[in-house]
Amino acid sequence: MMVSDGFGPASQTYGRSYWQFATNRTFNTQTSLDQILIGASRTRSSDSLVTDSAAGATAFSCALKTYNAAIGVDPEGTPCGTVLESAKAQGMLTGLVVTSRITHATPASFSAHVVHRDMESDIALHQMGDYALGRQVDLMFGGGRCFFLPNTTEGSCRTDNRDLLAESVDPKYGWNKAILTRNELNETHLDAGVQLPALGLFHLDHMNFNLDRMNDKKIAAEEPSLNMMVDIALKTLKKAGFKNRSGFFLMIEGSRIGTVVDVVYMAAHNNDPAAHVHEILQYHEVVQTVRNFVRDNPDTVMISTSDHETGGFTLGLQPDPHTYPDYMWRPEAIARSKRSTEVLMHELLSFTGTEKERRTFVKRVILEEGLGVTDATEEEIAFIVSPESPPVEVLQHLGHVLSKRANLGWTTQGHTGVDVNLYAEGSQADRLRGNHENTDIGDFMVSFLDLNLEAITAKLNANLGWFKKTRDGFAAAVSKRDSSQHEKTGR
Amino acid sequence: MMVSDGFGPASQTYGRSYWQFATNRTFNTQTSLDQILIGASRTRSSDSLVTDSAAGATAFSCALKTYNAAIGVDPEGTPCGTVLESAKAQGMLTGLVVTSRITHATPASFSAHVVHRDMESDIALHQMGDYALGRQVDLMFGGGRCFFLPNTTEGSCRTDNRDLLAESVDPKYGWNKAILTRNELNETHLDAGVQLPALGLFHLDHMNFNLDRMNDKKIAAEEPSLNMMVDIALKTLKKAGFKNRSGFFLMIEGSRIGTVVDVVYMAAHNNDPAAHVHEILQYHEVVQTVRNFVRDNPDTVMISTSDHETGGFTLGLQPDPHTYPDYMWRPEAIARSKRSTEVLMHELLSFTGTEKERRTFVKRVILEEGLGVTDATEEEIAFIVSPESPPVEVLQHLGHVLSKRANLGWTTQGHTGVDVNLYAEGSQADRLRGNHENTDIGDFMVSFLDLNLEAITAKLNANLGWFKKTRDGFAAAVSKRDSSQHEKTGR
Ligand SMILES: [Zn+2]
Ligand SMILES: [Zn+2]
Repeated sequence: MMVSDGFGPASQTYGRSYWQFATNRTFNTQTSLDQILIGASRTRSSDSLVTDSAAGATAFSCALKTYNAAIGVDPEGTPCGTVLESAKAQGMLTGLVVTSRITHATPASFSAHVVHRDMESDIALHQMGDYALGRQVDLMFGGGRCFFLPNTTEGSCRTDNRDLLAESVDPKYGWNKAILTRNELNETHLDAGVQLPALGLFHLDHMNFNLDRMNDKKIAAEEPSLNMMVDIALKTLKKAGFKNRSGFFLMIEGSRIGTVVDVVYMAAHNNDPAAHVHEILQYHEVVQTVRNFVRDNPDTVMISTSDHETGGFTLGLQPDPHTYPDYMWRPEAIARSKRSTEVLMHELLSFTGTEKERRTFVKRVILEEGLGVTDATEEEIAFIVSPESPPVEVLQHLGHVLSKRANLGWTTQGHTGVDVNLYAEGSQADRLRGNHENTDIGDFMVSFLDLNLEAITAKLNANLGWFKKTRDGFAAAVSKRDSSQHEKTGR
Repeated sequence: MMVSDGFGPASQTYGRSYWQFATNRTFNTQTSLDQILIGASRTRSSDSLVTDSAAGATAFSCALKTYNAAIGVDPEGTPCGTVLESAKAQGMLTGLVVTSRITHATPASFSAHVVHRDMESDIALHQMGDYALGRQVDLMFGGGRCFFLPNTTEGSCRTDNRDLLAESVDPKYGWNKAILTRNELNETHLDAGVQLPALGLFHLDHMNFNLDRMNDKKIAAEEPSLNMMVDIALKTLKKAGFKNRSGFFLMIEGSRIGTVVDVVYMAAHNNDPAAHVHEILQYHEVVQTVRNFVRDNPDTVMISTSDHETGGFTLGLQPDPHTYPDYMWRPEAIARSKRSTEVLMHELLSFTGTEKERRTFVKRVILEEGLGVTDATEEEIAFIVSPESPPVEVLQHLGHVLSKRANLGWTTQGHTGVDVNLYAEGSQADRLRGNHENTDIGDFMVSFLDLNLEAITAKLNANLGWFKKTRDGFAAAVSKRDSSQHEKTGR
């Protein structure tokens, strides 16, 4: 099960078209995804015509519609058994490979049960195995180390002082020692996989955008690409699953396609067209890797779809509302961009020179070398230079400065409701042809793997002590917060 | 062949979701289109990553990529044989049913050959039968009467004084007397069809939006719905085709889904979400009518796709760029709107009272009764009332005032490049599964109907006198114009 988070139909057109441009392919060349388009998925949640990632992923994992922010719980906030848990109960191996924090909404919805996605400290506990069912996941690769460190440690995001990196190796959970950087993955790992249960946490927060990994050796030494993680995961799970005669269920997420940004700024999406396209191209490579696996293993199936669109993204923006547009967009502007606006914003925030030096820095390093924009207007520069400009607005401004050069448009920093594309290949994939509710994809997995979600739901609800404690703790925490402040932390 | 002009994936989600809301259907109810989704179409033209309707329709009709503005000609500006002409050569009956001017880009690309879509006077001649191949079309229903009237007549759009309504009944072309209003269609027509060759021209310009037809008895008396036109066309062509043992090719266009507006303002699209949704709902009805026909006639196939998206349309707009959005859009705001912004703008332009009366008129008639907006801000009202505001901007403003209430977003008044959905049902429809170039749809029609486009192309090019005359005439006219002015007339 592959999830391309925040990836709508326009983003696939954009990714394909940019790829054709950048690699000199003809206009009629299909990407790995195009070749297996079989339909579309309708994405609304139980309480909104526009879903968030939590309700979107729970539709896949529990095969039910729930409210925005719900992680593995139904509309009443009661835990629902997931396909991952049910696969585990059938004796299969299970894995999660993502580029966000591993505790983020999509992977969480397969492996945890909390009433709100913000409860990432609790999500990490469930993923480690500290909840009603014990450890359910055999392989977890992604970011989010900060939720595995005690709050007495620098960089921790936990609300308590539990040290999950230490606890996880306790026989009660049985994890192997966590892998923390790309460089710890040696030739053996790359060839034959890793020891299960395997925990790889390659960043405190979300992993970096692929654009930045490509252009920064330090990042490349610390973080593997999604494609490398998936390759290792498939080798590992196949080998171990073959030994156990069990098979496996693997959820892969291109988590940052919708360019969700670092919590340093805010929990939103930053409309960065260059970071966006390189996440898409990396996802296309991963799709090819998985398709090769499916081709070599005829009893497998792969599904790829999105939880929702992000950004109201458009190719062919009208630059000035009062003149009639020419019908075009410009990939060459995107090709000049070498850094994500997220990384550029980090650099800007840590710049300490005089105002004059700051101006030069913005023009040279941020705009010209970073974004590849050499024709910025005085007004565009001034807003970035000014210490009065709120960082979150500067971040968005950078994305829009680049988008304008490429004639790309966005209507929102949030999600939209458009149906997303549905791709599948392999055994029984034809059953998913056409236009579906997102929950149909959950139903398909249940049927394909012969799962029993009801049995897991019953097990989870047999004694709700474990769940009530976290839920009540969250309710108490929320009631202390300003509710409008709370709204702003939604994603 | 059904073309939903300017109808992208977000618009289908929007139409379905509004329909479920307005008719109290559950969220998982599919529309007539959803049930036959089989893939997507890539829409770029030969000279741009974003197509216009002319190149988009020529990709279907001639099965080749050409430049924006090209009508039935290849990238070199040479006439290319169309599926309609080749079907006619095989002895089939042929028809065009649209809601735009019949001379507009999409129907023109099947039935005319000119180097620029603006040559609508020449397009009408070709459609009547005055070109190399003689009359090729057996049934034409739509708007655009103004291109059939001599320029000595009020309301004419022709560049010459030819009277095509009179010429068309000449035995040389053989058309029956043109039908000019809905009321001329009697019970016999509705039951058994019309006499061929049949010409129905129900408006001087584009036909009215379905929203206005629904809410204005005068319009309903003058103009049939697209669904009624299609119903009559199918009955007529089936009956006559059965008699001739010929079969038929019919092109149907939901021409105004992308809300292209009346030439009174400009050749653009007005981002009117209420007019948009009622064009979509009408199109859904037409799809059901055609699907019923295909079900009853197993040797037929129907295809429905779009030439391109329009508007960069989004469900779930971020109302204020500095606050984080809630994930929602609001169909109830659309349900309150009773008139298109096009018609409201006509009313505003013809209002002659004092400034105070004008203000009351704008608040009551335009905003409250027309758009269903009762909470307009002082600023929103002032822009509409001010005689300084350019009409085209007021028109767009009205659409945005309504869109804001519904949380709908647009990035452009023009087209965008996103892949569009591909729908098909009937004989051999499975061959169109997956992601395709728009030209593949032309290739499918050629193969399904066993056509020979090359033979028609050869015939058209055997003696180019007919073509050279119009092409040179156009070139001379263009060279006289200010080219930037000309740009603005593109669509
Ligand atoms: Zn998401
Ligand atoms: Zn069009």
